[in-house]
Order: sequence, then structure tokens, then C-alpha cells
Amino acid sequence: MPQTKSVTVIFEPYGTKSEFKKGILLLDALRSVGLNVRSDCGGRGICGKCRAIVKDSSRISKIVEAEKERLSPSELKSGYRLACCTSVIHDATILIPEESRILERKFLIEGTEKPVVVDAAIRKLYAILKKPSLSDVRSDVRRLLDFLQDTYGLEIVRVDYEIEKVLPEILRKADWKVTVSVWNNTEIVSVELGDTSEKVFGIAVDIGTSKIVGYLSNLATGKLLAVGSSDNPQVVYGEDVISRLSFASKGEDQLRELQRLAVKGVEAVIEQACKRSGCSLEHIYEMTVVGNTAMHHLFLGIQPEYLGKSPYVPALSEATDIKARELPIHLNPGANIHVLPVIAGFVGADAVADIISTEVYKSNRLSLVIDIGTNTELILGNKGELIACSCASGPAFEGAHIKCGVKAVKGAIEKLEIVPRNYQVRYQAVGNAKPIGICGSGIIDAVANLLKYGLIDKSGVFSKSSPTPRLRAQNGKKEFVLVSQKEGAARDIVITQKDIEQVQLAKAAIYAGCSILMKKRQVQPEDIGNMFVAGAFGNYININNAKLIGMLPDIPTRKMKFVGNAAGSGARMALISTKDRHVARLVARKVRYVELGLDKDFEKEFTSAMFFKSADSRA
Amino acid sequence: MPQTKSVTVIFEPYGTKSEFKKGILLLDALRSVGLNVRSDCGGRGICGKCRAIVKDSSRISKIVEAEKERLSPSELKSGYRLACCTSVIHDATILIPEESRILERKFLIEGTEKPVVVDAAIRKLYAILKKPSLSDVRSDVRRLLDFLQDTYGLEIVRVDYEIEKVLPEILRKADWKVTVSVWNNTEIVSVELGDTSEKVFGIAVDIGTSKIVGYLSNLATGKLLAVGSSDNPQVVYGEDVISRLSFASKGEDQLRELQRLAVKGVEAVIEQACKRSGCSLEHIYEMTVVGNTAMHHLFLGIQPEYLGKSPYVPALSEATDIKARELPIHLNPGANIHVLPVIAGFVGADAVADIISTEVYKSNRLSLVIDIGTNTELILGNKGELIACSCASGPAFEGAHIKCGVKAVKGAIEKLEIVPRNYQVRYQAVGNAKPIGICGSGIIDAVANLLKYGLIDKSGVFSKSSPTPRLRAQNGKKEFVLVSQKEGAARDIVITQKDIEQVQLAKAAIYAGCSILMKKRQVQPEDIGNMFVAGAFGNYININNAKLIGMLPDIPTRKMKFVGNAAGSGARMALISTKDRHVARLVARKVRYVELGLDKDFEKEFTSAMFFKSADSRA
Repeated sequence: MPQTKSVTVIFEPYGTKSEFKKGILLLDALRSVGLNVRSDCGGRGICGKCRAIVKDSSRISKIVEAEKERLSPSELKSGYRLACCTSVIHDATILIPEESRILERKFLIEGTEKPVVVDAAIRKLYAILKKPSLSDVRSDVRRLLDFLQDTYGLEIVRVDYEIEKVLPEILRKADWKVTVSVWNNTEIVSVELGDTSEKVFGIAVDIGTSKIVGYLSNLATGKLLAVGSSDNPQVVYGEDVISRLSFASKGEDQLRELQRLAVKGVEAVIEQACKRSGCSLEHIYEMTVVGNTAMHHLFLGIQPEYLGKSPYVPALSEATDIKARELPIHLNPGANIHVLPVIAGFVGADAVADIISTEVYKSNRLSLVIDIGTNTELILGNKGELIACSCASGPAFEGAHIKCGVKAVKGAIEKLEIVPRNYQVRYQAVGNAKPIGICGSGIIDAVANLLKYGLIDKSGVFSKSSPTPRLRAQNGKKEFVLVSQKEGAARDIVITQKDIEQVQLAKAAIYAGCSILMKKRQVQPEDIGNMFVAGAFGNYININNAKLIGMLPDIPTRKMKFVGNAAGSGARMALISTKDRHVARLVARKVRYVELGLDKDFEKEFTSAMFFKSADSRA
Repeated sequence: MPQTKSVTVIFEPYGTKSEFKKGILLLDALRSVGLNVRSDCGGRGICGKCRAIVKDSSRISKIVEAEKERLSPSELKSGYRLACCTSVIHDATILIPEESRILERKFLIEGTEKPVVVDAAIRKLYAILKKPSLSDVRSDVRRLLDFLQDTYGLEIVRVDYEIEKVLPEILRKADWKVTVSVWNNTEIVSVELGDTSEKVFGIAVDIGTSKIVGYLSNLATGKLLAVGSSDNPQVVYGEDVISRLSFASKGEDQLRELQRLAVKGVEAVIEQACKRSGCSLEHIYEMTVVGNTAMHHLFLGIQPEYLGKSPYVPALSEATDIKARELPIHLNPGANIHVLPVIAGFVGADAVADIISTEVYKSNRLSLVIDIGTNTELILGNKGELIACSCASGPAFEGAHIKCGVKAVKGAIEKLEIVPRNYQVRYQAVGNAKPIGICGSGIIDAVANLLKYGLIDKSGVFSKSSPTPRLRAQNGKKEFVLVSQKEGAARDIVITQKDIEQVQLAKAAIYAGCSILMKKRQVQPEDIGNMFVAGAFGNYININNAKLIGMLPDIPTRKMKFVGNAAGSGARMALISTKDRHVARLVARKVRYVELGLDKDFEKEFTSAMFFKSADSRA
């Protein structure tokens, strides 16, 4: 009878059971079933990282010298062994202790539906290389590639040229013990002296028209380390996208200037986040960028002129990877910048990020995403189909173009209600400070209350009668005093007829956009299963007031979810998960862009949405 | 009975026969069977390039307006049609005229065994794009990618960032008619106004320790357009590899200086070739580089210090692609430089090129390749296994370290024989000019003749007797006068005892190297099926004399082939054929390097090879 030539091994805590050739090296057995364990020296008994526990020592080969050096007597007694020094002779159960496991990690990002599986584009791997000798004259690069292939199964196809130039010095200075940063499992982008594998950071940046925010994260754990933010320095060339586009289209120099400012803003954000977290710039290996299409083009230094001219086509819609040093942005010299794809001229990478963070692309439920800003992006659909459009809602909700409007800074009135009995105004100012003006959420409250108590009519015009001295005329124009100087405000804080018009224009744009999208998909508000309201502003608004003034479609409040900076969350997901990065590519190509201007019903819808419905018809 | 829903089409001159769905568009039918035809507009009836001839018009759909515009009445009468406007209704025979075919081309490079199938890394494709409109708002990049995908089946994964930045301007300036350069079928590296598809050039460069040669070629046809050459400007820091290595290892500045000089030399060669051919630098999209490992490292700016120190390992052995602008070398801004792989510290990319041009890697026959230079590379093997070594043959055969030695310039004695009757010397000088010295091939002739007629003995020592006044003593040292000043030479041209020693050292190094390789493979000279002698010098030597002095192993002359600059030929193959480029990668990894210094028999073989065998034992 033939002798048994195979052994059965159970690996714990994985619970994996497999058959192997008798005498197989434990490390090879683990690799062959896809269980990743640490092995910095590539299986040469040097690093002592591939620890395994085998309770019954009779099942395996005898303890060798290398194990005596790397494991303490008490560890050896407890059954600790090195997987690279141990052969499996008989059926055995083998436990891989936590310190040796390379685990799949998950991380939850606020505003997202489910934990993200951490799988960043960058991996840092500590490597103890065999030194060259007359009988092993492999080149420095080949030696490194062989190690990565043998130890991690990595098929490297590219070594950053900047690394090729310095590798001989680094390897010898490091006595052949280095930490290698591998990008997308295929390119070596950094080689550092000694073990720096714990210092592996990345930053996700959301470039807004007015604000830039950066989320510095640990790429191995997904953990958020610090947030940096800055005003967009481009603002000196205009507050809105259109004025920047027209400046850039004047010529190459103007374009370069706007790019320089975008880069400057991003660098300020990175530095702030580094300072707050104590991380060093040189340990940032990856950056993701989202932003509207104009910011996307300007950041990359691509002429955005044609975004502003019919038919409003972007130069570049595809996701792009460039070396940070090409811009240049100061990070690790081999760092990569991944710029997410855009959908259309006015539906940018921020909308793509909204889609991946809200996960509407994989839900069966019909969802509506509203990302409110100067341009409001709307996305409607589900797993089957997604359509998107952009509406020029204007900056009213950011407090701009409003007589007493301010951003949500200290002293901004953020909430208010009118007491119907005496028309007194109860308000709340940011930081409980002396009121200096009114911000977006306050403006919505003001208009809703004016409507509710008959101070304005359905077309937004102030009541002819004056039930309260707060409704006054200044230079023949009516306005409502929210807080007067006498009442403690820095100045009389009022809402004018023109302010109300601005709100009407903004809310009508959003509402009409939603209507057109619903019409395209042939659905009614009641068919919508989820509504995601994104944008920093979304978290602070009174939802009933927003519905009352007809800014949001008539969808039950329980179906609404405020997701904050969903674009930033999407950028963070793309930073720590290459899978989500891939999804972003697919999504950007799949979403069907709807040009509102082309829809024959848009004007009608928009005009009709300018009116307020009667306050009673809502609740 | 069901109606026939398929048609059978025969495509001529290919002779391809295939079945299709009735009514299929002729262009789609051609693509589906892998027959490539020109279609600059992507099948929109605009470019008129996808011409086909159908004699029997009853088999196909009727002539449409676009065809009337693009084809002349007489062409239409002769059966010319556009494949993108014609559907196949019944079984038909269709001829694709030559102007519409995209053909596989072959090109013969001197010294190579078989014609090379032209398949360069760069393809230039003329594209007539559909203009954007409100109903087609694809981005500029996406529009181009879709065109390349639909028309040529190309899956582009990368667009050079420098192109992304300028694409919007180029497309609009060109009225959407551009020529796209695609690298490796995956990256867009250049977009030019209008149709420049005919201007597609590349250059293969062989960087020798003393000379740099460049072969400018048409990448579409493979045709050689011009050769440029220049001395290697690094020569100011030493004639040989070792002195350059020691200079570079002094520090970063010295390394940069040597790189700068290599780049300068290469640029001089490129400019010369451009001038000679009338090509413009901006139409060079690809360059291949070969050279010994030291030149390889210095050109790339990689510290070569460790090549000169035991265990002599290269920093980089892998093939490398870098943008020309990174060095920088002035070519088209998107041009790529492909540097071929090296085998070991002293067996470089030139040896890899030797192997691909001689095709020894795919022959069943055992072959020996000898590339003679200051370092002589030896390769032995066949399809099954290849081994290689390097021998320090020194510069004697290049006329250096020889008293009256000169390079093969005008006036160099390149051939000679001694008339045994009267010891007169019959010689031939380059350009039939007044003799100024003796070059490599002349030196071999001189030593062989001295040996043949007993003027030196087996150990290379001059005869004690003086049968002719030509064998004279100067300052107590013997020398043989080849041509005296009286006889018309610029000076007395002599061969000294030391010159003979130099030849002995050189020939012994080569011979011993061959012996060790044969021993490793356990073969005898008679087992060798082909011997390839490479190096510019090889073409001029008298083979019998070379064998007589024991410089080459004793292999029948009919088995020898002089292949000239085989390294240059290999570089040219890698330039026009990506397949050969791939082979080079495989070969470089497969060749087993033999370190002669490690072989216990090398010293013995070398010492024994210092002696000449008796002249009679050869023929």
C-alpha cells in the first residue's frame, strides 16, 4: 500500500482547512491558501515576524537555531515557532497570532452607509534583503523585486525613476533593511531607511469654490488623523465659478495663476492637517482630490474656458493619476495624486464623490441626492440608472447677495421664528454672540415664517397692510426687521423684497431641477425611497421650513438624511479604498447627464416653482 | 421554411471567408474578423479612407450621399464604396484596395537573420472627431478615447498629463482633426494639428565607451533614414570604463557631469541624424538605448560605483521606460526612452541586443557570440540555455596601448602581410593614404605574420637572430619595422615587444573566456554550430590570422559570421518591434552570468592562452 504523502492542516483563527504535500514549509502552506502573514525578511529566519503557534510539537519539524535566536525560551515552550523554519510532517492545527496576521481592516466614515474596507493604493512593506555576493549578483532593483514577488506575490512593473537613481545608496546606507512603498501593487514609489512601515499617511482634499478641506488619514487603518481647511485663495479673482472661468480664459498666464492659487490653498490645508496631527509631509504618499469641474480643471492647470461656453464640455472627465511633484505639491517625492472623474461641465468630481459616499449606485431603492451650493448638484436613481443635473441655485443660501447675509460665522443668525401674536422674532445666533447678520439656514426660517403668517404672499410680495412696525418701508421699499440695532444687533438686520426674490430664484432652481429629473425617470416624489441632503449647510436647516418654502421636493422627513460634506466623505473613501476608486470611475461613466436648459419643460417648471404654495397645503 | 438571415463574405486579397448577420455594415464585418482598414473618422462617412471594391453592386446596399461626396463617379462605376456606408445584403466578394489596408510590414536589418515584423511602440493615427454639441457633451479626452476605442479597438489607460493640459486648445485649433500618437496601445503621448501620421520617427542609440551611434528610423516602415555618430564626450574623464566609474563614485556632482556628457553625446548624434535625413526632432517619439552596464547607469544618472566593487552588482538590470523630458533629451515632448535591460555588471544591454539580433535565443543550434571591444562579451548557448561572461580584453584591438596604434582612421594600416622571401611588408592603409599608424585588424595581421615566419616564438618573444634589418633594437628593446619613414610613412611604424604582449593579453582573455563558457556547457569547439563575431572591428579582420594567433576558438570559418554592430542592430530591432523588446526582457533574465574570476580554471586557461600554438597546427 502506498504511504500517505499528504498532511491536513487547519489554520486558526481563520478556520481554513487544507491538504498539502507532507513536509511543506509552513510559510509556503500559508501563502498557498492566500493567508497573509508578516515576513519582512522574505522567509529567511531573520526578521522573526512569521510567528505561528503549534501546541503539539510532534506534528512538525524540530526547532532550529534561527528560532532559538528569534523566540524566547518561554515562547518556544508555549509552542511559538517561525513559519519560515517549520515544516509540517503530520496533520496539525496551527494558530497564527494576531501580531503576525495581515488583516483586512474596515473603517467607518461619517455620512456613509457602511464601513469601508481599507485597501489603500499605497502599501508600505518592511524588507530585510539578502546582501549581494559573488554567487548572487542580482541587481539592486531585481533583488527588491524578487523579494516583493516571493514574500508578497507582488508583480511590480515599474520603479519610479527617481528611486532607481538613489536606490544603490539607500540600500547600502540602510544595510539592506528598507521600507518600500508600493503603489497599486505595481509600482515602487519610495524606499526608506529602516522600518517606517507605520508611517503611511494620505490626504483626501475637497476643493470647493470658496473653501478647501483636507482629511489626513492613516492609509493602513483608515483612521482620520486631522482635518485642515482654508478659504480658496482663488477667491481674489471672483467669488463664483463663472468669474474664475472668464479670468482663466484670458490666457495661459491667468490660468497658471489660478492653478498656482489652488495648489497654494491645498498646500495650506495639508500643512495645517500635518501640524494638527504631528505627521510629516514626507510620509504622505497619496492624495485624492474632488471638486466641481471648474475647480478640477483649474487645479490640474487645464484650460476651463469651454466649460463656460455652449455646449459646456469638460476637457477631461476621466480619473487622473499624476505625481505630486508634477504640479508641484510637496508631499513624499513619489506621492501620487488621484483626481476623481467628473460627470459633466457642471456636475463634477464632487458629485461623483457624493454618489460613492451615499452608495446610491448600489441600492435598489430610488434615491435623490441634493448637494446644495452655489451650484446645486442633483442625482436621481438607483442601481439600475443614475441621472444628474446641476442647477444654478446661486449663493443666497451661503448668505451672499442677501442684504444682511453673512456666512455661518460667529454672530450669524442661524435659526429664528416669528411669534404670530406680536410678530416678535426669537432667534439664535452662532456662538450666542451679538447678531451681525443672517446666514443661509436663518434666511430659510425667515422666509418660511413671513409666508406662514401672511407677511408675504404666494408670489413673495410683502403684504400691503402693515400689521407690525417691523414691516417697514425704507426709501419706498418694504423690508422686515428681524433684529433692530435697538434690540441689540450690530445694525438693523432686515429681510428685503430683493432678498426674498433671491431665495425664490434659488429654491425654484433646485425644485425645478428635481422635477425635471423625476420627469425623466417618470417617477413621483412618493416613489423616492431616500433623499440625501449634502453640503455643510444641510445639517443646520429646519427641514419643515425648507419644505414649506418649496426648496425641497415634498418627500416625508423620515426619508431624508443629512449627510454633511458627502463629497469630502467620498474623497476619503477613494483615499482608503481602491475599490471605491474603481467604483467612482464606473459611476462617472454610467451617470447620464441631463442638461436642464435643453428640457422644454424647465422654464415652465422654474417659473411655477418661483411661487410659494399656500402654507396650509403643507405640514 | 425560415428565411436565410446570414451572408457569406470573402475578403480579398486576404482570402478570409466568414459568415455574418445579413445587413451587417461592411466596416463592422471587417473589424470583427480582425482585418484592419483605415478609418480616420471612425466610420462616419467623412474621411473616405475605408474604401472597398465590390464588383457586383446587387450584393450590397445602395450608394448613399456620403459616398457620392467622397468617391469620384468613375470610382463609383468601378465598384468603389465606403465600408462605413455599405451593408452586405447577399453573399459577396469584397476587395480591400491597398490604400485602405493597414498592413503588417517587415523590415530587414543588416546582420540579423530574418526580417523584423514592424510593430513599433508608437502608432500615429489620424482622427476626425465628431464636434461636441448640447446632445453630445462628452469631455475632450473621452471623445478622443471613444474614437480610438471604436475605430482601432484601443483601450487607452493613460493620457500624458502634458497633453491633458493642452488638448482643449489643440482640438479646437485643429477643427477636431488631429493626429494622435499612442504608445504601447495604451497611452496617448502626443496630439498634433491635422494629419501628420506619416511623420513617425524613432532612433536607436548604442552608447559605447568611446563612440555613440544613432540609427534614425521610420517607425511605420522600419526603414533606416540616417545614421549619426559622435565620440562619447565622457572620454575627457578617461578612455576606459573603470576610470569613469571611479570618477562617478567621487560624488553626486561627478555623476551628474558624466550623465550630462552622455546626454550631450546622444543629442549630438540625434541632431546629426535629423540633419542628414531632414527629419524634425519633434517627430521623434521613441528612442531605444543600449550600452554596457556602466554606460547604461551613467546615461540614466544612476550611481555606478558598485559596478566596480566586488561583487560588481548593477543598480538596475530591468528594462526601463522614461520620458525623454525627464533627462532631458529634446525630442517630441511626449517621447519615451526605452533602455534595454542588462544582464550583469559587465554584461550590459549591448550584450542583450547582440542576443536578440543574432537570434541565438531561439535557435536549436549551439551558438557562440563574441562582441569584441575593450570589454569583450561572450555568449554561448541556444534556445535551451544561454550563458554569458565578460573578459577584460583591453583596448589593443582598438589601437590603444599599442606604440603606433591608431583607430581605423584615414592612414591607418588595416591589412598587411610579410613576404617571407625578403621580409618586405605589403600593406593597405585606410583611404589609400600615407600610413600614420596601425589599427586593430592590422595589428592582428602583423602578429600573425611575425609568428608564421618565425620572427616571434610561441611565447611571443622576438627571434634572437635578425634575419632582416626590419627586426631591430632600439634602446636595447627589439621591434619590427612595418613601414619606415623612408618608405613613405609619417613616422617609423613599428611593432614592439610590449605591443605583442598587449595582443597576447587581449587574445588570451577572449580565448580563455570562450574555454570557460564551453567547459560550463560541457561542449567542445566542434559542437558549436554558429559563431557570431560582433563589433565594428570584426568586419575587417583577417579571420585566418585571428585564428592563427589564437584569438578565436578553433571553429571552421564557414561557421563564422561577422555581424558588425550587432548591439546597434538589436537596438534597432527593439525600436521597431515591441515583440523583440519583450524578448529582450525575457532574455536578460534568462541568461546565466558566469563570473570568470570565480572559476578555478580561469587563471590556468588564461596563462596557457597567452602562448601561441605553433603556426603549423592551424590552417
